[in-house]
Amino acid sequence: MSRKVQFIPGGTVTTPAGFQAGATFAGIKTYAQDKLDMGLLYSTSPCTCAAVFTTNRIQSPSVVLSRERVQRGSVRAAVVNSGIANVLVGEHGHKDALEMGDLAAKSLGLLSEEMAVLSTGIIGVELPMALIRAAVPKIELAESGGNAFARAIMTTDTHPKEAAVAYEHGGRTVTIGGVVKGSGMIHPNMATMLAFLGTDAPVEAAFLQKAVKESADRSFNMITIDGDSSTNDTVLLLANGAAGGAVIDEGSEESSLFQEALTQLSEHLAKEVVRDGEGASKLFEVIIQGALSDEEARMAARTVASSSLVKTAVYGSDPNWGRIIAALGRSGAAVEEDKLALYVSDVCIMEDGLPVPFFKDSVVLLMKSPEVSFRIHLNLGKGAATAWGCDLSEGYVTINSAYTT
Amino acid sequence: MSRKVQFIPGGTVTTPAGFQAGATFAGIKTYAQDKLDMGLLYSTSPCTCAAVFTTNRIQSPSVVLSRERVQRGSVRAAVVNSGIANVLVGEHGHKDALEMGDLAAKSLGLLSEEMAVLSTGIIGVELPMALIRAAVPKIELAESGGNAFARAIMTTDTHPKEAAVAYEHGGRTVTIGGVVKGSGMIHPNMATMLAFLGTDAPVEAAFLQKAVKESADRSFNMITIDGDSSTNDTVLLLANGAAGGAVIDEGSEESSLFQEALTQLSEHLAKEVVRDGEGASKLFEVIIQGALSDEEARMAARTVASSSLVKTAVYGSDPNWGRIIAALGRSGAAVEEDKLALYVSDVCIMEDGLPVPFFKDSVVLLMKSPEVSFRIHLNLGKGAATAWGCDLSEGYVTINSAYTT
Repeated sequence: MSRKVQFIPGGTVTTPAGFQAGATFAGIKTYAQDKLDMGLLYSTSPCTCAAVFTTNRIQSPSVVLSRERVQRGSVRAAVVNSGIANVLVGEHGHKDALEMGDLAAKSLGLLSEEMAVLSTGIIGVELPMALIRAAVPKIELAESGGNAFARAIMTTDTHPKEAAVAYEHGGRTVTIGGVVKGSGMIHPNMATMLAFLGTDAPVEAAFLQKAVKESADRSFNMITIDGDSSTNDTVLLLANGAAGGAVIDEGSEESSLFQEALTQLSEHLAKEVVRDGEGASKLFEVIIQGALSDEEARMAARTVASSSLVKTAVYGSDPNWGRIIAALGRSGAAVEEDKLALYVSDVCIMEDGLPVPFFKDSVVLLMKSPEVSFRIHLNLGKGAATAWGCDLSEGYVTINSAYTT
Repeated sequence: MSRKVQFIPGGTVTTPAGFQAGATFAGIKTYAQDKLDMGLLYSTSPCTCAAVFTTNRIQSPSVVLSRERVQRGSVRAAVVNSGIANVLVGEHGHKDALEMGDLAAKSLGLLSEEMAVLSTGIIGVELPMALIRAAVPKIELAESGGNAFARAIMTTDTHPKEAAVAYEHGGRTVTIGGVVKGSGMIHPNMATMLAFLGTDAPVEAAFLQKAVKESADRSFNMITIDGDSSTNDTVLLLANGAAGGAVIDEGSEESSLFQEALTQLSEHLAKEVVRDGEGASKLFEVIIQGALSDEEARMAARTVASSSLVKTAVYGSDPNWGRIIAALGRSGAAVEEDKLALYVSDVCIMEDGLPVPFFKDSVVLLMKSPEVSFRIHLNLGKGAATAWGCDLSEGYVTINSAYTT
């Protein structure tokens, strides 16, 4: 981690200059302790926008609408509800997404095209538009509204997840903040991960899109709770330039620093999601080194992190290297058995493809901590990647099977 | 199912003419109630052979050796042990596989090249060759030995799995029999699925390979317990021609009947494996129809059958169609929301992409039976496939996390 990038204590999506947010209770969300269920996020000045969306073939009409508007470059604010995902509801879904955006645009004095519209919650239920019509105008915006917004997007999350980072460059401070929700997965069909990021850096739109994709690929796309991906997943980033300075584009001296700060923030928020995974008692990271390519390293890291047998071994604090290597072997990445090395929380337990005699009690003890690391060196090339997962407990099964629609 | 193909009550791998098998206790397997842990399968006359093996990049040296010999077309018998998988043990693995094959060849009066050698059990432990040297000569072969052989390959299986089918053609009866083990998965690193199939049909080698691949793709490759694939998975098929008749090759009139019989047997054995999945209380099938291609249908069926959220819903007897459609959407297969239809055990609960009002208590009741069916019609083309999975229970987690190496 560069010392140039600093986390800001208490930071959130409204920490960067020129962002306001607010939330209210519309009466949509019925199952969470914190009942805020509608939120607005707003850049007080025009901005560039970028986003990555779910690749699921079944997508919420809200995602379809927001993608169009982000691609057009017109988004400056977002309206979001939790409790109902607005997906698989037929014709109504598109109309409701449009109207929800229009209501928010009117309330903010913006054009419809300036609103991103996002939803998270139960699949197959129509949005209660009467409640939404009543609620949107009641949302009050404030520069301190980031926390309320973070709470309003929660579904089965046990706590709001928010952070901000800053760096100094060219005599001014640039801040990037964000909030994220999901995917607790305790409720069915509520796997959605939504991340809202804002920055006061002035960023050229094409580079902003590249930067958000790059950071998502190293963070939000490298976490796994149970392998199910959602119909609504979205990472949205607005950049309003309120910090001043020259516009950052791909050729800028500042571009790599901005990318680093964005990736650090995204990684932090992504790990928060995994830590809050349903039934999870531990976060574990899978670091792959020495792969033929970064892409192969990513495949390997994700496969090991999502293996049910690895996840149950982590839950049981079992340094079960056979499960790890077997998962590695089926990942599709090139692997040569006699070159493999494996480290559990930095203790080498396999070298040259053979188990190293290790003091088991001490490795079990290491695995009992809330964060466990598996580092695998393939010794084939320079590809590297890290994925994060959570353990698989009886709690996950109980909660996901006890619920009925 | 064609009425031409009949299951034979009490059938096993030695039911076809010209097959003998036997088993003994070598002292390798320590954790199963049934202690038989070494077996021999033998074709009393020369035969053609074919096999499919694991695609895991980490493979047992026994798999490597057996693949070479099957490709050479020389295999006529198999020696197998359970309890230790002979994988990730370095140089020893290859030597031990060779010696185990040599011991069996000597005992049977065959050439080394005629032996397939297979192992299943714990990863990373060397085979106890002294025990194996003492055990192999003690194995007595019999035409009634199929059941003992089926028991000897069990690891965490709760019962032996065996079957045989027969059909009449050209005035004689052709029989295909088989045994299978795995993948109970309760023990770590013991995911291995081994299937041994034999037939008294005379089958040309190239067609035999094509037929075993085709049937495995519709059966053993369409089952999922927890998505982890093993270092040792093998399906071996021997065809000795003892039933007489003309040699069956791809152009034969009989080829499609033989293929159908082989696929029916394989499907039956594959479903037996899933039914015996660790912690499993139910078998469920996912039938995809109307996909753009069979390949897309396979992707979709496998993805839905392996979704943790679908598996926990099955466990909870929850007709949670949102989880099914969300898994379908991320499978990679082309899906158009407004064309989707979904049937739970033949009750339509979604049509044209929208939920159909259904009498929930009755669907929940259907889902409480030990076999549940999800049929999804994509209405896009003619591609079809079926996959089988088992539910995910707390029992799976408990057993897989409680164990320590």
